[in-house]
Amino acid sequence: MRITLINPNTSRAMTAKIAAAAREAAAPDVEVVAVCPEDGPAAIESHYDEAYASVAIAELILADQVSGGSDGYVIACFGDPGVDAARELVDVPLVGIAEAAMHVAVLSGRTFGVVTTLSRTLGRAEDLLRRHGFERACVAAYGTGIPVLALEHATGEALDEISSWCERAVRHDRADVIVLGCAGMADLCRRLSERIGVPVVDGVAAAVGLVTTMARMGVGTSKRDEYARPPRLA
Amino acid sequence: MRITLINPNTSRAMTAKIAAAAREAAAPDVEVVAVCPEDGPAAIESHYDEAYASVAIAELILADQVSGGSDGYVIACFGDPGVDAARELVDVPLVGIAEAAMHVAVLSGRTFGVVTTLSRTLGRAEDLLRRHGFERACVAAYGTGIPVLALEHATGEALDEISSWCERAVRHDRADVIVLGCAGMADLCRRLSERIGVPVVDGVAAAVGLVTTMARMGVGTSKRDEYARPPRLA
Amino acid sequence: MRITLINPNTSRAMTAKIAAAAREAAAPDVEVVAVCPEDGPAAIESHYDEAYASVAIAELILADQVSGGSDGYVIACFGDPGVDAARELVDVPLVGIAEAAMHVAVLSGRTFGVVTTLSRTLGRAEDLLRRHGFERACVAAYGTGIPVLALEHATGEALDEISSWCERAVRHDRADVIVLGCAGMADLCRRLSERIGVPVVDGVAAAVGLVTTMARMGVGTSKRDEYARPPRLA
Amino acid sequence: MRITLINPNTSRAMTAKIAAAAREAAAPDVEVVAVCPEDGPAAIESHYDEAYASVAIAELILADQVSGGSDGYVIACFGDPGVDAARELVDVPLVGIAEAAMHVAVLSGRTFGVVTTLSRTLGRAEDLLRRHGFERACVAAYGTGIPVLALEHATGEALDEISSWCERAVRHDRADVIVLGCAGMADLCRRLSERIGVPVVDGVAAAVGLVTTMARMGVGTSKRDEYARPPRLA
Amino acid sequence: MRITLINPNTSRAMTAKIAAAAREAAAPDVEVVAVCPEDGPAAIESHYDEAYASVAIAELILADQVSGGSDGYVIACFGDPGVDAARELVDVPLVGIAEAAMHVAVLSGRTFGVVTTLSRTLGRAEDLLRRHGFERACVAAYGTGIPVLALEHATGEALDEISSWCERAVRHDRADVIVLGCAGMADLCRRLSERIGVPVVDGVAAAVGLVTTMARMGVGTSKRDEYARPPRLA
Amino acid sequence: MRITLINPNTSRAMTAKIAAAAREAAAPDVEVVAVCPEDGPAAIESHYDEAYASVAIAELILADQVSGGSDGYVIACFGDPGVDAARELVDVPLVGIAEAAMHVAVLSGRTFGVVTTLSRTLGRAEDLLRRHGFERACVAAYGTGIPVLALEHATGEALDEISSWCERAVRHDRADVIVLGCAGMADLCRRLSERIGVPVVDGVAAAVGLVTTMARMGVGTSKRDEYARPPRLA
Repeated sequence: MRITLINPNTSRAMTAKIAAAAREAAAPDVEVVAVCPEDGPAAIESHYDEAYASVAIAELILADQVSGGSDGYVIACFGDPGVDAARELVDVPLVGIAEAAMHVAVLSGRTFGVVTTLSRTLGRAEDLLRRHGFERACVAAYGTGIPVLALEHATGEALDEISSWCERAVRHDRADVIVLGCAGMADLCRRLSERIGVPVVDGVAAAVGLVTTMARMGVGTSKRDEYARPPRLA
Repeated sequence: MRITLINPNTSRAMTAKIAAAAREAAAPDVEVVAVCPEDGPAAIESHYDEAYASVAIAELILADQVSGGSDGYVIACFGDPGVDAARELVDVPLVGIAEAAMHVAVLSGRTFGVVTTLSRTLGRAEDLLRRHGFERACVAAYGTGIPVLALEHATGEALDEISSWCERAVRHDRADVIVLGCAGMADLCRRLSERIGVPVVDGVAAAVGLVTTMARMGVGTSKRDEYARPPRLA
Repeated sequence: MRITLINPNTSRAMTAKIAAAAREAAAPDVEVVAVCPEDGPAAIESHYDEAYASVAIAELILADQVSGGSDGYVIACFGDPGVDAARELVDVPLVGIAEAAMHVAVLSGRTFGVVTTLSRTLGRAEDLLRRHGFERACVAAYGTGIPVLALEHATGEALDEISSWCERAVRHDRADVIVLGCAGMADLCRRLSERIGVPVVDGVAAAVGLVTTMARMGVGTSKRDEYARPPRLA
Repeated sequence: MRITLINPNTSRAMTAKIAAAAREAAAPDVEVVAVCPEDGPAAIESHYDEAYASVAIAELILADQVSGGSDGYVIACFGDPGVDAARELVDVPLVGIAEAAMHVAVLSGRTFGVVTTLSRTLGRAEDLLRRHGFERACVAAYGTGIPVLALEHATGEALDEISSWCERAVRHDRADVIVLGCAGMADLCRRLSERIGVPVVDGVAAAVGLVTTMARMGVGTSKRDEYARPPRLA
Repeated sequence: MRITLINPNTSRAMTAKIAAAAREAAAPDVEVVAVCPEDGPAAIESHYDEAYASVAIAELILADQVSGGSDGYVIACFGDPGVDAARELVDVPLVGIAEAAMHVAVLSGRTFGVVTTLSRTLGRAEDLLRRHGFERACVAAYGTGIPVLALEHATGEALDEISSWCERAVRHDRADVIVLGCAGMADLCRRLSERIGVPVVDGVAAAVGLVTTMARMGVGTSKRDEYARPPRLA
Repeated sequence: MRITLINPNTSRAMTAKIAAAAREAAAPDVEVVAVCPEDGPAAIESHYDEAYASVAIAELILADQVSGGSDGYVIACFGDPGVDAARELVDVPLVGIAEAAMHVAVLSGRTFGVVTTLSRTLGRAEDLLRRHGFERACVAAYGTGIPVLALEHATGEALDEISSWCERAVRHDRADVIVLGCAGMADLCRRLSERIGVPVVDGVAAAVGLVTTMARMGVGTSKRDEYARPPRLA
């Protein structure tokens, strides 16, 4: 089974890190391919960046389909940009890492807290929480102020900062589980879980598992009406 | 006061129709300028189309700012594509026609029904209803199956079809008010209201009124955090 | 266009202040008339006061209709008392200042905070927030403890008190926008906005703009069923 | 224990009918006193009527307090008009018949349907359902079109009409329980329950039981802030 | 009228205490019988305990029916364990003490706070709040850390601890009313109310009053579908 | 990896069928063990049955732990009985088939419909939908009237009946996806999907995939507070 992972920013280092996290969590019979666009923002940190990311994702999927397509797709950016548009393009399962992380989190505990990069992205996180019905399960959402690209070489200081916000969500807000709000945090997952003492969920691993599950079940994207192929492409 | 109206599809005929509707509803001291992109989809009928529209809108705003800017912006497509991204780019008020129509509708009655073009766009409408807190006020949302571009020369048959869905929302679902779900329906507003006997709201006129109201109040877009200028442009 | 503004308390000084705020925000072709009842409470600070205010408002509208009527009405008390009853009496648009302020606030940012007079009125504010679907957008609602009539001659101290609650809503609760919860605060709007650095919305100006917008659109109050003229008066 | 029942319309025949229903459901140690205003609407069938009813209720309570007061109050009109204002005036428990009926209904089954008089009153019913958290439990709300005063001498035809709407709520909407939406229907309760085969709840009996329960527990109206005595009366 | 009170833990001391509280709040014509199981947990402090309690309750009801049955049942454990299952077994009214306390609380004020034993039981409390529509009325839910059985001989220290959490709910969270989250706290009710100055609701007294009210009204458990006798027993 | 599947009814035929469905959907490195209790109901068709099922599940998990334990557990009954209690007993991931099916369904489309056995179980389904935040995504929930055990030898007639309810959910209620509401329907999944033309989700396969995903991620059940081992067993 071949799963294509789309990192919508242009950072090749981050694409490689995400691919590694995905492969570590994948079943033995799953091949993970990771791609990113040639042009566009190096980090997705605003609605403006997400607009460009949405187009880039759609074009990467259309290109992948020309060369044979995949058994499932993962959109590896925590805002789940362009997921609705991307679903229109595929018959196979397609999952964003934010929704994936939230689905896994609520199977691990009643409540979760999101710890992410810039606080300006929390609005988008709130939209996703509400769209997917997790607004009650999510008891805290914190921005650490650490920009996406600063995560590439996360020193101990950045880890401490992230860790302290996770602690706050658990002790003060009674979060049972932590959701990491950036694909670039994928490699911090186990260290944070050990420090804080509750499960910490990385969306990349979660999304790979969910897409694989759906592919094994033969459950793809429903093409009933909203997610049917766009008229322009039909 | 100068209000710029952005039609994110490339149809010049529809841009002209929208501009006329806007001018009819504007106060005497308001100048309405209407623009549309050179390239891109001729009609916005899918999430995929909206992704391209979001980028086009952002670029039109940035171009307008280079040439002096406006006192307010209206995004004239019922899915309110790219409104979050566009708000990041402006200090002045910016309003989408879907949100505008909904705000006006609930001041006219307790409940409203949305009548739009293709049923595949109802998912996006539902997201907007929920995001803005109108999920309880909206008691019906119907797709007529009439594509956006077929509205340009709406014959009596199309008007009858739209009218029958409006009737259904009023009689069967107890809608106090009808919201028309496409900028291309702006010119049908009064005829429909006369037929059905309840207020019918066109988002273009509503948005022009709301943006004007905000500009007069000196209330622009809050730049606190989420809608501050994107880091990439700062 | 003639808009009648109804202040349901008997304070003539406050009626004059509200009228001034309304006129400042009105379009050049709008005439604002402001009225208040002869008898009744001098300030609306309880549900008990609102009961009397509701009757007073209905009687002022019926009286205005006898002498020719208006193109729209604004109910200038933040509890929006008697708005449902008043809508039954009119065909034209009618807007309360609380709902108006909330509608404008969410077009300026994702979240807002309400800062009002006595904390005992927050229950009514919460009812309005929920009725209109703004319970998620409103992230803070504070009573300053300053009675309505003390606002008439607001010294620097009262302004400081109000300002500190606004600051709290912005810094602690992440409000993008402030809604002032009393018609008597209309003149503090710009000073507060300058101090706090986010948009501050006065409901009087907002309501005048919304009623004007609706009147220009030809959208009045839906007379379908709930808001049809009461059987007793038909 | 003395419970005062306030019928806010001026119909003495209906006041007597309500009093009889209340006495039938009261515990042996409960004395029921029923009052109605001298002036005002003969039936409460609009928001406009409710405005006058709210003032009448407040004045009847203040008058009762002058002559010694009661151990609890019931507001016997299904719109629960003026309940918030009335709570400000009392230390003892005070219950509206709509809220009472809803509280009892959800203890009898998961879902209920409301069957009331004129459909124009359903908006107020919806406000109450939402305010009290019963919006999910209530699966149907129907107006029969029978005016309040026509219930005084309900012929078989009116009973058949009401019964058919109850049937519809049970068979079509899966209501476990029926709530009768008018004090004037109190005497139809058992006959309807026998016909339809599910519990039918009359708010008058429910409210008397709830007020009595609270009085026995020593639980009155919380005077913490919102429901403290109004400043004007303090 | 005979009301059977079921304490699902095996503590006879607590059963006696609950029975006393019930009798104190009951009308003069109500006979209260209190029972508890022979085997099972001595305190219900986990979902695991509630699973056993649910079975024990069902068996106690079936046994009571063999010996003639009762006019109503109260399930005297704050998690309302097995209430859905128990309702399937009876035609008469059956009420849990958590739901009862919540229904009474919102008739006494707009908001309430729950103060209970171990914080690990708050998840179940939240499920009940949401199921019954009280999620907005409940503004605070605190675990005191005091185990159920430690309440049997509540020293002044335990009372102080409980009292301080009640205070916090009132002062910090603006709770109008306190709901005590354990049947074993029934005897603390009046002392706490005197200390804190707002109504304090004990679910046992509330449930006895509600079941009695329903029995007098002739409103039992709806047997329409969900709560009909289980197929296995039919 | 060893996943234990618990069928809480005593039907060995159904246990075998469920195990087959689970194995078909499992990754190559996953061993599925299926167990059911010796005593108890042969089918879970009421809240009363679920009470007994909850205890049986807890005891099967405790027994499995004595003999070494598993890497994850699946509760294979659509009401997810005893899932909260079971989570208290394990450190590893544990998933119910109803929640699993719902999580997968919303990754496949915006909306889903549930088609289940007896309509009396829909109340429990609604509780789960609301608990997990899927109340908006679920646009239809139908009982077919086919008892659980009649599914064991589902003739063409039963399949036609189930199929027609699925069709109704898709055509009338606009469901993008169907969720099958009984573990005993696991083998009908693909045939129904072919007939109806939208994805059909079986909870058994979904739960196996989700538990496996969590186990690979090292995300078990959060033991923070609510789901910590019960005091009685600690």
